[in-house]
Amino acid sequence: PAFASPSVLSTVSVAVADATAKLGAGTNESYTLSIPADATAASVTAATPYGALHALTTLSQLVDRDAVAGSGLRIAGLPVVIDDAPRYEHRGLLMDSARHYLNISTIMRTIDGLAQNKLNVLHWHITDAESFPLEVPGFPALAGSGAYTPLLVYNADDVAAVVAHAAARGVRVIPELDTPGHSYAWGLGYDNLTASCPTYRYVSNINNIPLDPTAEWTWTVLQAIVQQLAQQFPDDVVHAGGDEVVTECWELDPDIAAWMRNKGWTDYTQLLGYHVTRLGGMIAAQGKTVVQWIEVFDAGVKGLAKDTVFQVWKGKDELYSVVEAGYRAILSDSDAWYLNCGMNPGCAYSSWQTCYSNEPTPPGTVTPAQEKLVIGGEAALWSEFTNDGNVDQQLWPRLSAVAERLWSPRDVANVTAAEPRLAYHSCRMQARGGLDSGPIAPGFCDVRVF
Amino acid sequence: PAFASPSVLSTVSVAVADATAKLGAGTNESYTLSIPADATAASVTAATPYGALHALTTLSQLVDRDAVAGSGLRIAGLPVVIDDAPRYEHRGLLMDSARHYLNISTIMRTIDGLAQNKLNVLHWHITDAESFPLEVPGFPALAGSGAYTPLLVYNADDVAAVVAHAAARGVRVIPELDTPGHSYAWGLGYDNLTASCPTYRYVSNINNIPLDPTAEWTWTVLQAIVQQLAQQFPDDVVHAGGDEVVTECWELDPDIAAWMRNKGWTDYTQLLGYHVTRLGGMIAAQGKTVVQWIEVFDAGVKGLAKDTVFQVWKGKDELYSVVEAGYRAILSDSDAWYLNCGMNPGCAYSSWQTCYSNEPTPPGTVTPAQEKLVIGGEAALWSEFTNDGNVDQQLWPRLSAVAERLWSPRDVANVTAAEPRLAYHSCRMQARGGLDSGPIAPGFCDVRVF
Repeated sequence: PAFASPSVLSTVSVAVADATAKLGAGTNESYTLSIPADATAASVTAATPYGALHALTTLSQLVDRDAVAGSGLRIAGLPVVIDDAPRYEHRGLLMDSARHYLNISTIMRTIDGLAQNKLNVLHWHITDAESFPLEVPGFPALAGSGAYTPLLVYNADDVAAVVAHAAARGVRVIPELDTPGHSYAWGLGYDNLTASCPTYRYVSNINNIPLDPTAEWTWTVLQAIVQQLAQQFPDDVVHAGGDEVVTECWELDPDIAAWMRNKGWTDYTQLLGYHVTRLGGMIAAQGKTVVQWIEVFDAGVKGLAKDTVFQVWKGKDELYSVVEAGYRAILSDSDAWYLNCGMNPGCAYSSWQTCYSNEPTPPGTVTPAQEKLVIGGEAALWSEFTNDGNVDQQLWPRLSAVAERLWSPRDVANVTAAEPRLAYHSCRMQARGGLDSGPIAPGFCDVRVF
Repeated sequence: PAFASPSVLSTVSVAVADATAKLGAGTNESYTLSIPADATAASVTAATPYGALHALTTLSQLVDRDAVAGSGLRIAGLPVVIDDAPRYEHRGLLMDSARHYLNISTIMRTIDGLAQNKLNVLHWHITDAESFPLEVPGFPALAGSGAYTPLLVYNADDVAAVVAHAAARGVRVIPELDTPGHSYAWGLGYDNLTASCPTYRYVSNINNIPLDPTAEWTWTVLQAIVQQLAQQFPDDVVHAGGDEVVTECWELDPDIAAWMRNKGWTDYTQLLGYHVTRLGGMIAAQGKTVVQWIEVFDAGVKGLAKDTVFQVWKGKDELYSVVEAGYRAILSDSDAWYLNCGMNPGCAYSSWQTCYSNEPTPPGTVTPAQEKLVIGGEAALWSEFTNDGNVDQQLWPRLSAVAERLWSPRDVANVTAAEPRLAYHSCRMQARGGLDSGPIAPGFCDVRVF
């Protein structure tokens, strides 16, 4: 025609097979997205609303500014036919609200970022040795004395708001109740919850002070918290912690030592096993599956539920050991996916290329059956050196590289091909607002970015 | 009294000996600040307005929220008598607006942060191989083609605004004209400004493409820029660059090779010397002192002005060599004060402790006379992995640790004593707004922070 009118995408039809599907482990997230050459309509089909959400995210990312026309927006690469599904069902980020309290607004905008990258799990490491910021109504001193200040707590409304914000964006929230190690802050409110070892040579290292699993009072409190978490977090998974338990404080606590003698136990790994299996049973009784840190596997604890999932922060050999033993596993290897490294002494900054190239199961490492037991991965942002003021910069754009590793097939692994796509995506995340980040290389954001 | 009234600081008297003193190298920044026990009045005396500014900064930092009264503010440690002066006259930060363009607002809020930390120099590394964002009216293609886009330039109004913002806060702005290396972007607008070496095996490494100092046209352009910088930047110092000059491209340019033969020169270090001394003369003719990167010293260039200052980014041994040779020196050693390291491959993150403990001249390294030639130091934030979205987080709070090293006497060096002070100061910078940063350790910001 002599005068072309720009076409307008006036309709996006969405067909979802099971509109009531629940968000959780194993939810079908596949989708198809079709846009004909004239771009007047788009159609989405998906098994669940969560697949449809991913389709709409993709659609929004196919749009940029029309540099040729000089104004307006365009969809590149028409006609579009995309048939997409994630490689892994579990694609997450660990956030730590104990080393520093994170504002709800920080957690929510991070969830927005997860959704923009088709990540579907927020692993909320709520408590740790340094603070216990979760309000537990039956035991008010837990947060009352365990939080940094009474202002820096998460009450029931806060948790509900985070869970709802996440669910609306296809993001599961898995709470972590890190026990029996990393529990010093529990004892600030109720000192008989934690082991007592004033003669311990590293007593000032609060990370080494565990709960006292030999006291029934501890189990009264744990039972209340497990019930609360089951109610507050609809996800079918609870993380029970289990990492870095140092038994020396237990050994120096005379009451615990007496309890051990009474049991006829001499190996404190038995006490770890007692704690882990009893707590795991409590969680299972709420209808939830348990995730444990890899140390629980390494300790050879007996009697764990066969559906226990182990999260591996050490090397990939541990990942393979877990799946060889028939358990499911989540990869969070610290040398690639610990996004706090670099600020933390003792571990080096992980470049986006390292994040991207971190293939969980290179050819030859596991059998096809074992590979199915690797359900996904998580990046982790431990917050010793992170607060609301620098979360975004530590996460992005590297977390986008992790996201592609977890979503795309193994052979989508070319760093050179990924670089311009990641740079553009990073600019887009900034242009669309809310999340700051640094760049991945010298340059600037293309003015077409929308 | 039965009912005490809180006292009100109603008067701050400021006496400045020379109210017209110019901000520049060697400006007297000393001050005294006295607040009597009743805190109803404070008095400041200073040789110059810049010392008085530091006094007011200190005064503002003596104020926090009154946690005892529960409301209002208080001044701790009354009566206060402070007699203060900097150890070094040159206490700076290098910002690089070439690897990424930095918005004027970013530069201005960073200047605010410098002032809060009594840093007094912004070393503005304006151009580099990647981009030439400075508008030069006589040569419009320099920024027209050398900037990333025509939007990402600094015009005369921008520069004037930065200089005025800095001057009002006691911060000098020293422009860097990095030549003859790191000049690839100059050639984007005027290709005969840079050496031509299409057969160079690393021709795609734009950092290795230098200016062509054998062409008089190059000097016409340099003369215009030097004059412009002299007018735009009132400071009495100009940085002439001189770092990382790779001569191989020169050697492969037949016109340059012919010029060398005509001179009877065979060593391309002679060409470097020719460039540096001729440019230095141009800058000196504008009444300005020249700073050069350490490579110019290392190359043994003859005929440099004796008042040339060398900026040392390599190890401290180079610092000592410079002052042993009778030149003045600025320390910016990359293993401590390069705040971009950690994000950049090839150099490790520098903790705040490393920044803080970086004593320029430990006992036994230099004579007292040589020590006087160490005029200060600069942290550097090279911006390959920095843009407006993460500048703050990369600078703060580590730059505060550098600031104390450069201001305070050598024996104020106890890391354990500095930690709570730095943590509090970092919280204060965040509480007062404008500058985000991460924390230096697990914890939270005290509610008293103001």
